[in-house]
Amino acid sequence: MKYVYTFGNGQADGRANMKDLLGGKGANLAEMNHLGIPVPPGFTVTTEVCTYYYNHDSNFPRELEPQIDKALKSIEDIMCSGFGDTKNPLLVSARSGARQSMPGMMETVLNIGLTTNTIQGLIKKTENPRFVYDAYRRLISMYADVVMEKSSGIEPPDGQGIRQKLEHILNTFKEKNGLKNDTDLTAEQWEYISESYKQEIKNTLGAEFPDDSEIQLQGSIEAVFRSWNGARAVSYRNIENIPDKWGTAVNIQSMVFGNMGKNSATGVAFTRNPATGENHFYGEWLPNAQGEDVVAGLRTPNPINEQTKTPETQDLPSLESCMPSLYSQLSKIRTNLETHYNDMQDIEFTIQEGKLWMLQTRVGKRNGGAAIKMAVDMVNEDLIDKNTAILRVKPEQLDELLHPVIDPKIEKDTTILGKGLPAGPGSATGRLVFTADDAESWYRKGEKVILLRDETSPEDVHGMHVAEAILTAKGGMTSHAALVARGWGKCCIVGCSDLYINESLKEVQIGDTSLKEGDWITMNGTKGIIYIGQLNLIPADPGTHEEYKQLMAWADESRRLKIRTNAETPDDARQAIAFGAEGIGLCRTEHMFFDEKRILAMRKMILTEKREKRKSAIMELLPYQKHDFKNILRVMDGFPVTIRLLDPPLHEFMTLTENQIQELSNHVNIEKSQVEKRIANLHELNPMLGHRGCRLGIVYPEITEMQTRAILEAAVELIKEGIKVFPEIMVPLVGTVEEFVNQEKIIRDVGIKIQEESGVGVDYLVGTMIELPRACLTADAIANHAEFFSFGTNDLTQTTFGFSRDDIGSFLPDYLDNKILPQDPFQSIDLDGVGKLISLAVKHGRNTRSNIKIGICGEHGGDPASIQFCRDNGLDYVSCSPFRVPIARLAAAHAEL
Amino acid sequence: MKYVYTFGNGQADGRANMKDLLGGKGANLAEMNHLGIPVPPGFTVTTEVCTYYYNHDSNFPRELEPQIDKALKSIEDIMCSGFGDTKNPLLVSARSGARQSMPGMMETVLNIGLTTNTIQGLIKKTENPRFVYDAYRRLISMYADVVMEKSSGIEPPDGQGIRQKLEHILNTFKEKNGLKNDTDLTAEQWEYISESYKQEIKNTLGAEFPDDSEIQLQGSIEAVFRSWNGARAVSYRNIENIPDKWGTAVNIQSMVFGNMGKNSATGVAFTRNPATGENHFYGEWLPNAQGEDVVAGLRTPNPINEQTKTPETQDLPSLESCMPSLYSQLSKIRTNLETHYNDMQDIEFTIQEGKLWMLQTRVGKRNGGAAIKMAVDMVNEDLIDKNTAILRVKPEQLDELLHPVIDPKIEKDTTILGKGLPAGPGSATGRLVFTADDAESWYRKGEKVILLRDETSPEDVHGMHVAEAILTAKGGMTSHAALVARGWGKCCIVGCSDLYINESLKEVQIGDTSLKEGDWITMNGTKGIIYIGQLNLIPADPGTHEEYKQLMAWADESRRLKIRTNAETPDDARQAIAFGAEGIGLCRTEHMFFDEKRILAMRKMILTEKREKRKSAIMELLPYQKHDFKNILRVMDGFPVTIRLLDPPLHEFMTLTENQIQELSNHVNIEKSQVEKRIANLHELNPMLGHRGCRLGIVYPEITEMQTRAILEAAVELIKEGIKVFPEIMVPLVGTVEEFVNQEKIIRDVGIKIQEESGVGVDYLVGTMIELPRACLTADAIANHAEFFSFGTNDLTQTTFGFSRDDIGSFLPDYLDNKILPQDPFQSIDLDGVGKLISLAVKHGRNTRSNIKIGICGEHGGDPASIQFCRDNGLDYVSCSPFRVPIARLAAAHAEL
Repeated sequence: MKYVYTFGNGQADGRANMKDLLGGKGANLAEMNHLGIPVPPGFTVTTEVCTYYYNHDSNFPRELEPQIDKALKSIEDIMCSGFGDTKNPLLVSARSGARQSMPGMMETVLNIGLTTNTIQGLIKKTENPRFVYDAYRRLISMYADVVMEKSSGIEPPDGQGIRQKLEHILNTFKEKNGLKNDTDLTAEQWEYISESYKQEIKNTLGAEFPDDSEIQLQGSIEAVFRSWNGARAVSYRNIENIPDKWGTAVNIQSMVFGNMGKNSATGVAFTRNPATGENHFYGEWLPNAQGEDVVAGLRTPNPINEQTKTPETQDLPSLESCMPSLYSQLSKIRTNLETHYNDMQDIEFTIQEGKLWMLQTRVGKRNGGAAIKMAVDMVNEDLIDKNTAILRVKPEQLDELLHPVIDPKIEKDTTILGKGLPAGPGSATGRLVFTADDAESWYRKGEKVILLRDETSPEDVHGMHVAEAILTAKGGMTSHAALVARGWGKCCIVGCSDLYINESLKEVQIGDTSLKEGDWITMNGTKGIIYIGQLNLIPADPGTHEEYKQLMAWADESRRLKIRTNAETPDDARQAIAFGAEGIGLCRTEHMFFDEKRILAMRKMILTEKREKRKSAIMELLPYQKHDFKNILRVMDGFPVTIRLLDPPLHEFMTLTENQIQELSNHVNIEKSQVEKRIANLHELNPMLGHRGCRLGIVYPEITEMQTRAILEAAVELIKEGIKVFPEIMVPLVGTVEEFVNQEKIIRDVGIKIQEESGVGVDYLVGTMIELPRACLTADAIANHAEFFSFGTNDLTQTTFGFSRDDIGSFLPDYLDNKILPQDPFQSIDLDGVGKLISLAVKHGRNTRSNIKIGICGEHGGDPASIQFCRDNGLDYVSCSPFRVPIARLAAAHAEL
Repeated sequence: MKYVYTFGNGQADGRANMKDLLGGKGANLAEMNHLGIPVPPGFTVTTEVCTYYYNHDSNFPRELEPQIDKALKSIEDIMCSGFGDTKNPLLVSARSGARQSMPGMMETVLNIGLTTNTIQGLIKKTENPRFVYDAYRRLISMYADVVMEKSSGIEPPDGQGIRQKLEHILNTFKEKNGLKNDTDLTAEQWEYISESYKQEIKNTLGAEFPDDSEIQLQGSIEAVFRSWNGARAVSYRNIENIPDKWGTAVNIQSMVFGNMGKNSATGVAFTRNPATGENHFYGEWLPNAQGEDVVAGLRTPNPINEQTKTPETQDLPSLESCMPSLYSQLSKIRTNLETHYNDMQDIEFTIQEGKLWMLQTRVGKRNGGAAIKMAVDMVNEDLIDKNTAILRVKPEQLDELLHPVIDPKIEKDTTILGKGLPAGPGSATGRLVFTADDAESWYRKGEKVILLRDETSPEDVHGMHVAEAILTAKGGMTSHAALVARGWGKCCIVGCSDLYINESLKEVQIGDTSLKEGDWITMNGTKGIIYIGQLNLIPADPGTHEEYKQLMAWADESRRLKIRTNAETPDDARQAIAFGAEGIGLCRTEHMFFDEKRILAMRKMILTEKREKRKSAIMELLPYQKHDFKNILRVMDGFPVTIRLLDPPLHEFMTLTENQIQELSNHVNIEKSQVEKRIANLHELNPMLGHRGCRLGIVYPEITEMQTRAILEAAVELIKEGIKVFPEIMVPLVGTVEEFVNQEKIIRDVGIKIQEESGVGVDYLVGTMIELPRACLTADAIANHAEFFSFGTNDLTQTTFGFSRDDIGSFLPDYLDNKILPQDPFQSIDLDGVGKLISLAVKHGRNTRSNIKIGICGEHGGDPASIQFCRDNGLDYVSCSPFRVPIARLAAAHAEL
């Protein structure tokens, strides 16, 4: 069994494609050797050793030690030095390296090999005692922390770790001696510090710092493996969905030093600009410094070349100008790496006494705009093909281009006021208001407002609409506020439980801060963070982004899934078309009822017991509904529009205050007590499972009649204007074919009447939303009658799991922490349960009616993993909120590739 | 195509097994001919003609007319008379007869064939003009109503039908002439009435009464077929689930008359007593009367024989004494029919001038006790075998034996006060109380009480327990009141929306009646009817019913399904064992928490944020729970007991008044505002889909720990006493295997600890309730860990349909009326949806673990149709409330046979 892979001097056991075994770092170090790039020699202990270690009660395989010894020998040969050699000692580093980069989550030990004996040899060799003792104290400090303390599992009794204690020694010493920076200490002073460190370690941890290279190396390797299960690494893996069983590799590499004088240096660079995507070599460097100095930000780094200098860095020395030949060598390596990997690389290098060493290369992270630009540029440079370009951009990365963001430089330095759930993307800034009416009146005065509520309800919609952003103290990712905001692509944070709102005083308490109406706040809805004050926002405008347009055109060529949008206003519809939507997959009709005049007619209908009177009450709504449908269908000229019949339980239209009840009673001329009785009657214990969906249309067929008439009359009038309309009338919440048949008959009867009245034939479909397990189980029967299915995966997830999305907050966090659920099933389709039902329904539906049109219109329609699932199950389209249409387009292309 | 089947004179085309084609009546008339029983000759027009008629736009097949002519000829031959013959006219009747008896739901026309011409012949022949004109006016009245008006489909404009108008003529005439009874009219007077009738018909309906035998016959046949789709017939079919497509047959039969003088008579009889099951010939007769006179109850009928005389009928003449030879002939026919059909028959006969004619035989309806007695008696008489005996008794018929009933003689004549849903079976009488506390204090004073509430909650349980019955204004068949009552076999009516309760005044308004605390009411919980006052109840005691015990013993031999019970108290468990339960399938644990002391500990736990403190709060409940489990397990010595871990959402324990909150705050030393905040926090929008079931045990593992410890410590202590215990610990509401694994680990860990502590090994299982679609879909994975499945079909039905059983009342009636659902899916398992999921889960569960124990513990466990489904799907047991155990035992035997 081969556990150790060596590399160095242009040769290596491994390759870039062996990341699973060697980790990303190890595989790329090997690869760079094959490319003839100078890399400090070393070896990689494989991830299999990590797995072995955890499966065998923290023991290593027997073969490991001889293999390490052999590999160490090969480093010694290349470096012409000896590990533990008192005259010409070799120093090495131990670094983690997992299959997927987990930056900063695991441990590193540097300068391994320094002992009281080797120190003297190194001083002679380098003639730089200060450098040597500085390195020595670094080793002691890291080793004590990483190997001796953390891996011991012992919690420091006073809460102070050994690292803090050693730092305290150093700080006290500096204070006492009037020294400001570490660079001010002399060799002797570092030596003194080192000794103090060792004493403190002995006192605190009850063990000696090992004065033996071999022991240091063994300890370091084990400590790195152990750090795979450290708290930080575990929680990072949970967030990133990295399996525990992958394990990490450990890379042992000869030390090189960028801090050995003026012809030494260190730096990090990207082969292209990761913020803009521009094809410029972009990076930072520091002369006479170690890598951690660049990363730690203690010294201001210099720009790597002249081209990428900014006004701020104009006067700083570039590597290009200071070390032109080394820069040129580095620049060639940059080209070499990009042509080899065909992707932008993130590299680390060190120059030791005039010699360039590459310490790392990996695919560089980039922001969304940059990802798009690089992908398109690389196609134009013939580095990659179009499909690769499409796959280079994560669908979620488009989000940045679609919403304004807080200027990242400012955001970085701003104190966080509070946190909540990131319910609506993008950022916004505005003045706090506490009611929807206030939002509207401030808005009319020309003010930007952020609407703050405990929770929102449909009656807040007018205030939500004019607000820059919405912030709620309660509710989850699928609460009313979140749904509405995402539909509009509006910045929104929900469930911010730190908020204590006093609506009557128009005040809110967040932690120690108290804010009043009119105070400015800024929200990052993508991350769920709230800031005090008005921060600068960078606006979004993907339409001006040429590469974006190019990439999306390529994506559209590749995908087969159609992308529709969930929209219920002409503005939404227009926005969605601008973003590339090919139809409306879900036009809800209930919000159209909430306008002041309309809701009165609705309430009258609800209060009327006699069928005929009820019918005339609901018919008062016909002109409004028709008007709305006409406007939407007009915008969607040539595209299909799926209109869902009324869905919510009637009590949603009857949340009234005492006064409103009195007014309503006067208006409809029904005794107040009767109104109250009816409201009480409408109350439901589980409204999600109550009298809603097609159950309304069955008990109140006049609602279905009115809505169908509104849709088809609108269609007729538009057809006469020459507009192409394809309405698809959707019956919600069907669980039995009999329900569908009942509603279909009403719809078809109205259809025939309207054709007779107008003489115009409308090309319309009647189908259903599949959102109950029973609908999936009887999809064959339903497809006998329904011309299309649209999966309502929100409700289907609720009923399949028995989870109320409004109430899931009380246990979902525990479920995710305990890995009972891999993720929130309302974000991404649960394949084992909900997915099975969908597959079943598609299969059975197509068996009955082979050409049945099938789509999805739940929240999942905009989720890339769910889009993959939809494509694999042969759906015709996905429908998502307008602002997710581009994301869905790209995800649909990914799903094909 | 043969559309007409003749019978008469000991010969017949049909047989008893041709009911589908000839209807029950026609088939049995044919059969009686084969048995040599005298039947007036006639013919049957088949049900196929009915189907043809409805499928062909109200046209008859061409072949029909000649076949009818031929059949009519054969009647004429036997009766030596001619249809329409002026000298010796034949009169016939036209009667409906469907596959299944639909008594009184369709139309009949008698005396067909009387015309101005034939009347004279008949008068000569009978020498009884009064009889002839009486028959004539009966024909005119029936024909005008049934054939001319009803089948015309014309609604009378003044709301008065022709029948009412003709009756009005007769009544006016009688008044004017000072006549009291129809029998007081002379021949001439009947003739006058007949003429007036014909005039009125012409005026009202605009058509002449046909003076033509042939037209009368044709019209009558068509009218009977039409009556298949009359309003009464359709609604009866809806109730009895009779398919529309079956159609009815029409029987044309020679008229015989029991009203032709002193040696004529008519009667109805049962071959055994339908009320007691005694093997006595039992019936009623009237001399010189027509069949309708016996049925209509205008004259008090006489007992058929001496044996069955009662004190009330002691002085009435029996047929046996008045016409001994005819009685003896009838008595032989009785034996003949019983030996032939091997079942109790309901017969009709007419004696015309000394000759006995049988008009009908059919299997007789009987009440539950009689059904059992007859079935067992007939086995002893070698008439039927044991399996037939088992099948003769409908499981639901046992219900009568298990609950007291209102004396039927009294109930019949008592005015109904109100109606509601029949939620708990049997009857009860008691004095009204308005609160649970009042119930208890009245009960302590020795009073029988009926608890009246808007809705009940767990806090009412003590009052519900002592009440004779429970009555609520709100809630459905699965509301809290209904569930609790059924569990106890207690009389209960829910959802009685006519009740207007004023709790503070302790008054209730029902319609125009106002009742106060202490007023007596009586309830029929089997039918959902409320009476005012104290009615006499007949107590139930199946243990004394020898035939019941015999039948149940036979049933137990036949069935393979085990029958368990849902019980949560030792009393329930004892009751269930007495009824034959073989284990507990569902022992809920939540009600055990509602005792005053216990709920305090529960509330403390809920209010405690720190895990460790919470644990110690919940541990206060350990002794109580252990005590409860010990008592139940002791009663169930030798039987398995499935105990479900805590299921309801925590807010159910926190419904508190302002004062109670203050008290609790004082008691637990937490600020009142904090208590209020926690309560608000626990509020859920859809509690059915909220934080309940295993979701509790996952977030609060200490609950699972405590409950497991209580169960297993109870088991250990009982084992030491020599009791055989088989606890099965059931994790509720599992949707993902990860949930189960999480809870199983906690349970097993406690199990190991208790074995270590006690040194006693407990033979226990860990399994889960399958009550979510997702659990069914992933049953294979869950069965990897779970040792048993128990289908919770209540919740599974809720989630599969997306129906809240608490809220279904607002649309279920419309659903049943519109045939969108064939029945309430909470009463009988929905085979197409819920059934599919169960089948899937059983199949996948057994694939993974072939010996997995599978049962059902929802409300459906006591429903015969659902028991059949469970048996067909290979379940091991069903579990139902104690009072349904005998029903389930019998249903399980039926399912096998």
